Amino acid sequence: MFGSIFNSLESFLIMQNFTYYNPVRIVFGRNSIARLPDLIDAQKRILFLYGGGSIRKNGVYDQVRQALQGRALVEFAGIEPNPRYETLMRAVALAKTEKIDFLLAVGGGSVLDGSKFVAAAVRFAGKDPWDILNKQAPVRDALPLGTVLTLPATGSEMNGFAVISRDSSQEKLAFGSEKVYPRFSILDPAVTQSLPRDQVANGIVDTFVHVMEQYMTFPVNAPLQDRQAEAIWLTLIERAPAILKEPVDLDERAVYMWCATQALNGLIGCGVPQDWTTHQIGHELTAFYGIAHAPSLALVLPAVLRSQRDRKKEKLHQYGERVWGIRETGTDSLDAAIDHTRDFFESLGVPVRLKDYNITDRHFSAIVDRFSQRGSKLGEHGDISSEKVAEILQMIA
Amino acid sequence: MFGSIFNSLESFLIMQNFTYYNPVRIVFGRNSIARLPDLIDAQKRILFLYGGGSIRKNGVYDQVRQALQGRALVEFAGIEPNPRYETLMRAVALAKTEKIDFLLAVGGGSVLDGSKFVAAAVRFAGKDPWDILNKQAPVRDALPLGTVLTLPATGSEMNGFAVISRDSSQEKLAFGSEKVYPRFSILDPAVTQSLPRDQVANGIVDTFVHVMEQYMTFPVNAPLQDRQAEAIWLTLIERAPAILKEPVDLDERAVYMWCATQALNGLIGCGVPQDWTTHQIGHELTAFYGIAHAPSLALVLPAVLRSQRDRKKEKLHQYGERVWGIRETGTDSLDAAIDHTRDFFESLGVPVRLKDYNITDRHFSAIVDRFSQRGSKLGEHGDISSEKVAEILQMIA
Repeated sequence: MFGSIFNSLESFLIMQNFTYYNPVRIVFGRNSIARLPDLIDAQKRILFLYGGGSIRKNGVYDQVRQALQGRALVEFAGIEPNPRYETLMRAVALAKTEKIDFLLAVGGGSVLDGSKFVAAAVRFAGKDPWDILNKQAPVRDALPLGTVLTLPATGSEMNGFAVISRDSSQEKLAFGSEKVYPRFSILDPAVTQSLPRDQVANGIVDTFVHVMEQYMTFPVNAPLQDRQAEAIWLTLIERAPAILKEPVDLDERAVYMWCATQALNGLIGCGVPQDWTTHQIGHELTAFYGIAHAPSLALVLPAVLRSQRDRKKEKLHQYGERVWGIRETGTDSLDAAIDHTRDFFESLGVPVRLKDYNITDRHFSAIVDRFSQRGSKLGEHGDISSEKVAEILQMIA
Repeated sequence: MFGSIFNSLESFLIMQNFTYYNPVRIVFGRNSIARLPDLIDAQKRILFLYGGGSIRKNGVYDQVRQALQGRALVEFAGIEPNPRYETLMRAVALAKTEKIDFLLAVGGGSVLDGSKFVAAAVRFAGKDPWDILNKQAPVRDALPLGTVLTLPATGSEMNGFAVISRDSSQEKLAFGSEKVYPRFSILDPAVTQSLPRDQVANGIVDTFVHVMEQYMTFPVNAPLQDRQAEAIWLTLIERAPAILKEPVDLDERAVYMWCATQALNGLIGCGVPQDWTTHQIGHELTAFYGIAHAPSLALVLPAVLRSQRDRKKEKLHQYGERVWGIRETGTDSLDAAIDHTRDFFESLGVPVRLKDYNITDRHFSAIVDRFSQRGSKLGEHGDISSEKVAEILQMIA
């Protein structure tokens, strides 16, 4: 009864005031890596950051070196998945020693995120750059950064956010700043040719959930943003089989690449409440149990939706109807929308059940304790406590 | 037969390479004019450009003066609808005399477009700034510009384009440059409170046709852009009655304002062929016959679609099905999609028939002659000659 009054009040809520600013220059399409020389001033001293060497195998490394022949270029390799603070601080030291004034990040979301942190840390005026993550210390300046994206998924190529992990404290923390927007991002679908199938499937899940976090809250009067979000889902669902098929169809990879970018560049989040509970719990599954990012989301999202089903019912209904074609109303239709979502992840080959992982602590007490210690409340209403997180984790166990 | 081969070949065309760059900072929502002091550096000498004085009646003028109290501010009033080169060159002279280093455009698309031209002309290194329009002379520098939008329609607040008219030659010409992107645009739905109903209806038509010009071509593999375009149409069609109703519902005006901005900020045009035939013919109806911009589009668009119906059949069918719910296939369904479009414009109260205007030359020979002299070919295939333009004009006569 109280719930239904609350929900009907919320239905009248208006679009929120917002600022949208996204100055990233997207250079999209075949052979776009060759445009690097036009995008970086000739006199810049460039630090070329990358990951574990996959770019050496797929030809991207050679394309970058070729395009930047004759430029002052220093390399920093070895930024790992879930980029580690400890690794990145070595890049910071190198950038200072080498008097670097431009960062070129070549890789997936981890390399891009890590490079954003390096950009901010090199110019950080405070004592300890960890404060950028731990205390959300303001980023007042950063090295300019450009990117060549090799694994579409995180949206990092067109936003000012980064997620960084620290070994010593088993923490995975985020920061965001306008100062770390890439000056440009090169998106050439051909670089995805050699990606393993499961990485592409994971990227589709990550993209799907990014849209969900910005959509599945309480309704405000933002019908365009709703439909822009649904546009991404409808495209992903329609094209997922073609995106994943072998031999690779680069035109379909182009579609996927643009979906991933549009899902987290701020546009669909303009003026609407956001959730991010699934990401916050998922990050802890990664930090404590080593479950990769997208699979952690595929595990957590259905549980979050079931737990919050009645509070999210208006948007869940709209989602079910417009995205999955569910015509019925009522509780069953809400459950059906959640089932469709989980089944979609499963159809991509991404595990959606905890039994697929070797996890013995079924109470996830380390995660619950951490939320309890932080005292953070999750969700669009800011009322998901650590007790509620424990309930959600039980639902996936 | 040849046509059908051509069409089936085109169906396999891929998403085009593209660059997307849009650094405009959108400040959206109630009371956002008060944020002006944070958006313009304190030491700037500001030229405050506006139109015919409506902003003096609706309180926007006072809000701007209030927000910028104590700043070095010079005014230039009188930028007219279809802004005139002759008027704008007086603003250029004033900006130079007053050593202006920031332009603040407050008004609708005409004031914004006119101010973009002023921004480029003040810093133009060539001899005659008319060359920017007439010869597409490159704009290498421009004064920084900010805007307060009062009439959503043209999308000028979030792009680098402007359309300028010249009395002496009865011309209406466009230019575009990254240098004239607004540094910021303030979008406060409250400023639309006092707009006459027909200006809002015209703005809805303008927005609708902007989407059409970037969508209704031949199909390429860009399903996300298609759905992002359809998102704007579906929102406009669903909300048009609420947007136009009295008393004004500012929350619905906010929806409309964001649709208008999203329709022409480059996003939905990424990687797809574009048409713009309707705008190019419409501009001449404005230049020669004084028909306002949106009504000229409402007249011309249905004729262009009928004329190009078979060449645009794939996208016309998709549009009819997804936007108007037409389930049938075949020629009738294409005609139905065109009829729905014209009926929608009519439902807004915008004239869609030539008899609503007092035009005696039913051959539109001045317009046809102009296209003939220019030798320009319109349309996504670049094959709509002046003879074809004459046919299209006959269809509206």
